Amino acid sequence: MKWNDVGGQVCSVARAVSVLGDRWTLLFLREAFSGTTRFEDFLDGVGASRATVAERLDRLTRDGIFEQHEYQTNPVRYEYRLSEKGAALLPVVLTLQSWGDRWLGDGRGRPATLVCGSCGRETDPILVCDSCGEAVGDDLRAEYREDAWVRTRQSRR
Amino acid sequence: MKWNDVGGQVCSVARAVSVLGDRWTLLFLREAFSGTTRFEDFLDGVGASRATVAERLDRLTRDGIFEQHEYQTNPVRYEYRLSEKGAALLPVVLTLQSWGDRWLGDGRGRPATLVCGSCGRETDPILVCDSCGEAVGDDLRAEYREDAWVRTRQSRR
Repeated sequence: MKWNDVGGQVCSVARAVSVLGDRWTLLFLREAFSGTTRFEDFLDGVGASRATVAERLDRLTRDGIFEQHEYQTNPVRYEYRLSEKGAALLPVVLTLQSWGDRWLGDGRGRPATLVCGSCGRETDPILVCDSCGEAVGDDLRAEYREDAWVRTRQSRR
Repeated sequence: MKWNDVGGQVCSVARAVSVLGDRWTLLFLREAFSGTTRFEDFLDGVGASRATVAERLDRLTRDGIFEQHEYQTNPVRYEYRLSEKGAALLPVVLTLQSWGDRWLGDGRGRPATLVCGSCGRETDPILVCDSCGEAVGDDLRAEYREDAWVRTRQSRR
């Protein structure tokens, strides 16, 4: 299988990775969630080359993660704001950050501490079942649709 | 900045992306969380080339995501099991899957449905504050350490 076929798998992880699997992409999201909207600030914040930043902002806009908004005319300049689809990636960035805090630390505490908007306390968000509120873990089970990747793969054997 | 410098940023997202930013890596994790442990099954499940699978399993083992366990002698064969550090990536894969379900669907329902181990109901896990239990959202605030990426970047201006 070629990389370009991955997005065609009947699997939401594969589909998501085909959009986000680019290694710079998550840094663009980090910047966006920190409030960055303008080209020069992405350039400074992500630290990739000018060509890479232009190409990724374009691609993420085509993929519907960012929306372009004109903020200046003559010359026209655009800023890039997260769409609803893009903003919905916050949990992905937060779980990634939490894992990095725990497993890739430098022994000097977290680089960034999160403060809950509801209770105002320092928070390390956890993933819970939306029915019962219990933390999800190893005992989670998956049921696959007939044409899901994992099933079609098994039937090839 | 070169890609290889990204992991050196004082930022847990950057550090995590430097380990996981490879576009195949998340598919290896998907397979591992589905119970795959052996080389031939990763080859079948991930769909990358034999060389890529060998290289990534090696790298993920060096990064402490997988642990090698001998399951056969003469000839010696190893399986790859998630370490504690690797298993801690479950929330990243689940939030990715959930986003893919919601935003990259094919209109025919989720490829995989998750069933909660605690209540036995279908679940779409949500991220909540570990203090007050409220869902985290836009009102989350970050406080940065003195040497954190976002602060050193600001001070360059």
